[in-house]
Amino acid sequence: MNVPNPKITTGALPASRKIYVNGVLHPDIRVPMREISVHPTAGEPPLPVYDSSGPYTDDNATIDIQTGLPPLRSDWIAARKDTHTYEGRSITDADNGFVSDAHLTPEFPIKPRPAKALNSKAVTQLAYARAGIITAEMEYVAIRENQQRAADMPPRDGEDWGANIPDQVTPEFVRSEIAAGRAIIPANINHPELEPMIIGRNFLVKINANMGTSAVTSSMEEEVDKLVWSIRWGADTVMDLSTGRNIHNTREWIIRNSPVPIGTVPLYQALEKVNGIAEDLTWEIFRDTLIEQAEQGVDYFTIHAGLRLHMVPMTVNRVTGIVSRGGSIMAKWCLHHHRESFLYEHFDEICDICRAYDVSFSLGDGLRPGSIADANDEAQFAELETLGELTQIAWAKDCQVMIEGPGHVAMHKIKENMDKQLECCDEAPFYTLGPLTTDIAPGYDHITSGIGAAMIGWFGCAMLCYVTPKEHLGLPDRDDVKTGVITYKIAAHAADLAKGMPGAQRRDDALSRARFEFRWEDQFNLSLDPDTARDFHDQTLPKEAHKVAHFCSMCGPKFCSMRISHDIRAQAQKDGLEAMAEKFRAGGDLYVPVTKAPEPAE
Amino acid sequence: MNVPNPKITTGALPASRKIYVNGVLHPDIRVPMREISVHPTAGEPPLPVYDSSGPYTDDNATIDIQTGLPPLRSDWIAARKDTHTYEGRSITDADNGFVSDAHLTPEFPIKPRPAKALNSKAVTQLAYARAGIITAEMEYVAIRENQQRAADMPPRDGEDWGANIPDQVTPEFVRSEIAAGRAIIPANINHPELEPMIIGRNFLVKINANMGTSAVTSSMEEEVDKLVWSIRWGADTVMDLSTGRNIHNTREWIIRNSPVPIGTVPLYQALEKVNGIAEDLTWEIFRDTLIEQAEQGVDYFTIHAGLRLHMVPMTVNRVTGIVSRGGSIMAKWCLHHHRESFLYEHFDEICDICRAYDVSFSLGDGLRPGSIADANDEAQFAELETLGELTQIAWAKDCQVMIEGPGHVAMHKIKENMDKQLECCDEAPFYTLGPLTTDIAPGYDHITSGIGAAMIGWFGCAMLCYVTPKEHLGLPDRDDVKTGVITYKIAAHAADLAKGMPGAQRRDDALSRARFEFRWEDQFNLSLDPDTARDFHDQTLPKEAHKVAHFCSMCGPKFCSMRISHDIRAQAQKDGLEAMAEKFRAGGDLYVPVTKAPEPAE
Repeated sequence: MNVPNPKITTGALPASRKIYVNGVLHPDIRVPMREISVHPTAGEPPLPVYDSSGPYTDDNATIDIQTGLPPLRSDWIAARKDTHTYEGRSITDADNGFVSDAHLTPEFPIKPRPAKALNSKAVTQLAYARAGIITAEMEYVAIRENQQRAADMPPRDGEDWGANIPDQVTPEFVRSEIAAGRAIIPANINHPELEPMIIGRNFLVKINANMGTSAVTSSMEEEVDKLVWSIRWGADTVMDLSTGRNIHNTREWIIRNSPVPIGTVPLYQALEKVNGIAEDLTWEIFRDTLIEQAEQGVDYFTIHAGLRLHMVPMTVNRVTGIVSRGGSIMAKWCLHHHRESFLYEHFDEICDICRAYDVSFSLGDGLRPGSIADANDEAQFAELETLGELTQIAWAKDCQVMIEGPGHVAMHKIKENMDKQLECCDEAPFYTLGPLTTDIAPGYDHITSGIGAAMIGWFGCAMLCYVTPKEHLGLPDRDDVKTGVITYKIAAHAADLAKGMPGAQRRDDALSRARFEFRWEDQFNLSLDPDTARDFHDQTLPKEAHKVAHFCSMCGPKFCSMRISHDIRAQAQKDGLEAMAEKFRAGGDLYVPVTKAPEPAE
Repeated sequence: MNVPNPKITTGALPASRKIYVNGVLHPDIRVPMREISVHPTAGEPPLPVYDSSGPYTDDNATIDIQTGLPPLRSDWIAARKDTHTYEGRSITDADNGFVSDAHLTPEFPIKPRPAKALNSKAVTQLAYARAGIITAEMEYVAIRENQQRAADMPPRDGEDWGANIPDQVTPEFVRSEIAAGRAIIPANINHPELEPMIIGRNFLVKINANMGTSAVTSSMEEEVDKLVWSIRWGADTVMDLSTGRNIHNTREWIIRNSPVPIGTVPLYQALEKVNGIAEDLTWEIFRDTLIEQAEQGVDYFTIHAGLRLHMVPMTVNRVTGIVSRGGSIMAKWCLHHHRESFLYEHFDEICDICRAYDVSFSLGDGLRPGSIADANDEAQFAELETLGELTQIAWAKDCQVMIEGPGHVAMHKIKENMDKQLECCDEAPFYTLGPLTTDIAPGYDHITSGIGAAMIGWFGCAMLCYVTPKEHLGLPDRDDVKTGVITYKIAAHAADLAKGMPGAQRRDDALSRARFEFRWEDQFNLSLDPDTARDFHDQTLPKEAHKVAHFCSMCGPKFCSMRISHDIRAQAQKDGLEAMAEKFRAGGDLYVPVTKAPEPAE
């Protein structure tokens, strides 16, 4: 592989190769998957798994962040003939936090003209879906979701709480789910590098990782690698939550090199433009920021339009007040001016911007609880009801919508969150942060929240925003990001299993077979984090010979239950125990205890 | 503090001191708790929390592992006048795995004569409870469970799934729960050093940590410190799962220095006595091992008596066969001899031994599923039904019983496990390993299982056996043990919150208040792992001055929602917003939007 950017993490995961599956309705689409091969003794074909890592893990791809990823959607977008390119907004000093000269991050070398809808048309996946059009993006995600699961899947199992999960995802099913507002494909027309993905309760549970650029300008390679590192381990979308300087230029580098949807909170950049003084925010500055980011290709915007003036007093008796950054900024603005939120008042205009670029909404939960004590309170649910109202407005404008959710919620209150969201927001996809199921473990909030995330994913939450071990304490480093992503992949997969997503259990079964057959390498390779699994094994049994050892390093050979199980099976074959088992199941009285079972003592 | 054993981890946790609460019925009992003090600006009293760490965290205690912990229960046991001491079984070479000379671990310096019931009397807490006696142990755990929660607790919240949780735990409530078999106090009369604790669904959820002695003889200090390290972070019981050499002598050192119940799987030692050949096991060798361990003071025995000959064939089509070590050993024995398990056949004799020392049963789940594919299958539930049958036998002998459970179970099948256990075993306490909610994340199985543990704890599981990150891969080191314990403390506490355990939320609230008020030191000190919380914070903001910073290191001052929330409150006080909020709640029309809300577009 040609590696012009040595700091970018590239290369396939162990025993893996990238494959591409072509479309049928749209034969030019090539949907990436990862195939994990297993040892020949297994007698099993390679296992295809969902792969959000983009070309970075394709050993045949050339990665050069100076040119960005190939714009695979350009032709699809052009073929729809409903957009035009234009000069676009000029970049101002304010866009980069008033930084200049030596402190200014270099601009991305290529500056394409932004595209926009012709004649105020809605160029959203929702508009197409409602018009009965199956876009290339829709077929793409249909193929992607199926992960080549065979038609002869084992019987389905699971409790889906009223979801509607098909055996096979068809492009038409995708279209119908989007048309109903139950799913979204965040895909700005100015982000043609995107490999489309879908968020909805009838699809695989997705996860989001957050990133932020460093205050001290590092190289653009290091910034892009934060993205690459997150998606390598499975982040389905990445939110760029940067604040401070160089925010515009750095975002350009990230989007041009991102195969996953990029989300932002435009309010953060708007606040920088008014020097951090919330009261000085105006609709005009905010509106301009939306256009700036829409032209760059941001795929979804968190908009805290559900926090209204009259809700602010509901938070004064909370243990932790308002913990959403966007929420607190808007609350302060409302209170200072003693007027309704400009986000709420101008929501229809925001919709007009989003529909012209297909920026999806992530309606923000500015009043989410920041502690167990504040969960499911009046403020939280009042805002949620408003988010439901805004969903209808956005849908009327053909905009795609998902809804953000908490936060900190004890286990017994999680389902109420999910049920109320489905009810208030008419099944628009739910996107939650955790929730954290207790407040007492800072340093371990990936775990306190992973518990809640798995549960709410099972109950119907479509995307889970990760939490790293540094939450509440500091800025996550590379290891923290990986730990957060893997924890949330666990939560999402546990949810998929419990929902009965067809084929989800294939990976568990393949790994369990490898475990039972002492195929150590396969066990590592099939796991979410092969590097860590291998490292942990080698800490106890470092020699290569131990990778074929027919016992577990925990117990040693004498106490290895799996080795003994194999002895039992060998014996069973000899004795025809399987036939005996059949007879037993049929009610036969095969085994008479040699002595009488003990009677209860009097 | 006098520290004759420098390798033993001693000393109070940050901002903590040990307090002791005296009994009323039994004035001589002194129940330990940990008080965490907060900064004077909080205006809050110290928070008492449950403390399983024993004298090791008492700065006034002298720790010398050569003498062991003070035998605080000796007088209580003697006062009951139903036991006598006797010469006890002689230690054989086989007891220490046939090791001798230089390889033999030194004997514990003090060898007390073991005690035993007089005249085949049952000296179990269950026998006393049934006789209407409130023992010192019962009052001790009542005080301990309450954690000095005030009578004026906030209104209770939670879903307890049919549990019966009182506002205050009284000694009589403890007695009645034990009498009903719904709770146990594992407390061998030969383990007088024990600080009693209770396991049952109407009490705080407990956690167990496993330990094993090293194959290479290390110092006794290092072995004892494995125990001390586990309980420092919150393990409520410790299972010594050692195999191999020096097993007897090392166990003596551990028990003599343990303030928590010690559990074992006697089958492991019995197997060592027959050189690891399962077929050579006999009832006589097993019985002798039970007596050996009962005389040492082991508090609970895992006995895999529920795995019967006719169940073995049910496992041959499983993906992962039998994954319990004890289960596989017994299955092999049954199959080889083609006869019923000697554990099942001699179960009443085992009860006779247990009742003479008050060793509690932990009825082993030899057929627990080892993969998602095998969960809730015929073999697992057939064994569970047998465990229910054995529970009745043990109860008839006045023996205390808990039931072990799985294992690997997807989320949607967890509740069925709990419900079936309650039904089959008449509410005897359930004690589960995890369960792991997916198989695809070796290296992170503390998390895959922490999810399941929190859920089953909520549903009624009384004790959760920890899983470390090394599960399936290697032997846990000190960091892994800590990570496992903290993860399980999170799961247990999340379960307590969801069940609505009175007072459980006090710690969450105290920590959240500290967070909201930027009391960084209090936030660290109130957390489950103050050292890690502080370290993570210092990685981003290392200076001491930052510990009083009125902003969060994640976001910086401009974007700190909590700082802004304080501004809002200040404004609220000025504006009388609280009064306005009251009016709003009463239906007042305080806020009229300045402009009309947008209408849905057509």
